[in-house]
Amino acid sequence: MTASRYQVTIEYDGTDFHGWQAQEGWRTVQGCLREAVAQLSPGGYEVIGASRTDRGVHALGQRASIELDRPRPPEQVLSALRALTPEDMSIRDCDFAPPDFHARFSAIEKRYLYRLFVSSSGPTFGRGWRWWVPGPVDVEAMNAAARVVVGEHDFAGFRNRSKDEPDNPVRTIRHAEWSGGGEDLFFQVIGNAFLYKMVRNLVGTFVEVGRGLRSVDSVREVLATGERQRGGVTAPPQGLFLMEIQYPGEPPCAPQAAPPTF
Amino acid sequence: MTASRYQVTIEYDGTDFHGWQAQEGWRTVQGCLREAVAQLSPGGYEVIGASRTDRGVHALGQRASIELDRPRPPEQVLSALRALTPEDMSIRDCDFAPPDFHARFSAIEKRYLYRLFVSSSGPTFGRGWRWWVPGPVDVEAMNAAARVVVGEHDFAGFRNRSKDEPDNPVRTIRHAEWSGGGEDLFFQVIGNAFLYKMVRNLVGTFVEVGRGLRSVDSVREVLATGERQRGGVTAPPQGLFLMEIQYPGEPPCAPQAAPPTF
Repeated sequence: MTASRYQVTIEYDGTDFHGWQAQEGWRTVQGCLREAVAQLSPGGYEVIGASRTDRGVHALGQRASIELDRPRPPEQVLSALRALTPEDMSIRDCDFAPPDFHARFSAIEKRYLYRLFVSSSGPTFGRGWRWWVPGPVDVEAMNAAARVVVGEHDFAGFRNRSKDEPDNPVRTIRHAEWSGGGEDLFFQVIGNAFLYKMVRNLVGTFVEVGRGLRSVDSVREVLATGERQRGGVTAPPQGLFLMEIQYPGEPPCAPQAAPPTF
Repeated sequence: MTASRYQVTIEYDGTDFHGWQAQEGWRTVQGCLREAVAQLSPGGYEVIGASRTDRGVHALGQRASIELDRPRPPEQVLSALRALTPEDMSIRDCDFAPPDFHARFSAIEKRYLYRLFVSSSGPTFGRGWRWWVPGPVDVEAMNAAARVVVGEHDFAGFRNRSKDEPDNPVRTIRHAEWSGGGEDLFFQVIGNAFLYKMVRNLVGTFVEVGRGLRSVDSVREVLATGERQRGGVTAPPQGLFLMEIQYPGEPPCAPQAAPPTF
């Protein structure tokens, strides 16, 4: 029996999932995908995701590697997985992957997007995919704070503790920028990898800068000291979207002009 | 004691409401608004809506008349009602209304918008506000069918039976058009009034034309015969948005260029 390796692109509305990572007794994206793969390929072959998104976090461009017991045409695997997964997740693409491909460790860069709803009253629609900030916020100050974190830094001050977390907290951010206007602001960040809750901690801190609750210099201090308690709140999960993963041979991640809307 | 009459503009995500109209034991928009008004004005004064939207139907521009036991500044009524209503409904505006103002009977025109998601696979996000049609559809044919219903007609063939429904089925549609493209099509209709489920029956019939399941002529036959069984399916409620109501002294309803997205 020769196992055959594929890579898939997945989108999911994180609202009703307990995050990516399979956990006994919880509805997770990896769990649903594993069940689908096990029906195609009895024995339950490995499903590995590029990013272990938290409960409530969404994805438009999650990538995963899966293994089947034998080679099948990718179009056939795609339609089978679509039929076997629930309606709040969708397999966008499926292709063969090289035997050494690992969705997590082969990733070169990742792009995340975070949506705010800035208004004196909360959103009536789409409360599941934006963070309500009872504005106003100073976008220029938020962008000044975002520029502070671009480059290679020790991001210990922006991570939450987790037993699964690697020790080395050095990451490289290539792009970090706030865009949009009016009620709809969004943040995009591209980097080689991210620590546990790092994007949400950056967003929570930048929003405090935007609201005038802290200075841009205070963001430099969080980086310099590595002390999480100097940083801002963790922004809630529902505003966060995993947008894109870059693998070898693929074009680099690129920010988009408008946020995803539904 | 002098009662004082106000008119309010309301938006609501219809997903978790059992429609507009108050019903014992159900969570309704009118019911929630009545409770809020009763807290402001003990005794529970009248709340009347322009349109009795069905369960699951959304509104961005519902209008209602309310009465309070005594005059208060409209800004004060607005912020009190906002504080007293749940987060999936929002009071947009509040102003005094003339004593003879009646949100339903004073309305001159109404505009509705219906959203489709046309794709071989269903939507992952926003399933609560679009109707998935496993395309393709012929938009030109749908617009040819929409033009058939513009003007003054007997719409008996496009209404569902209801004990609350008035006898006279003649209504005037001034505008009916499909717009958008790709996966996101939407229909807008402006008319002096609409029969029970009339917009959803029009949409369901037009989509059957777009899918090649029936002819434009068959739409003329539904109008001419007044026989509901000749028409198409009732489109599901979650794609429908009540967008706008026109009252005396206000500009006429006008179609918008893009659908509401969230």
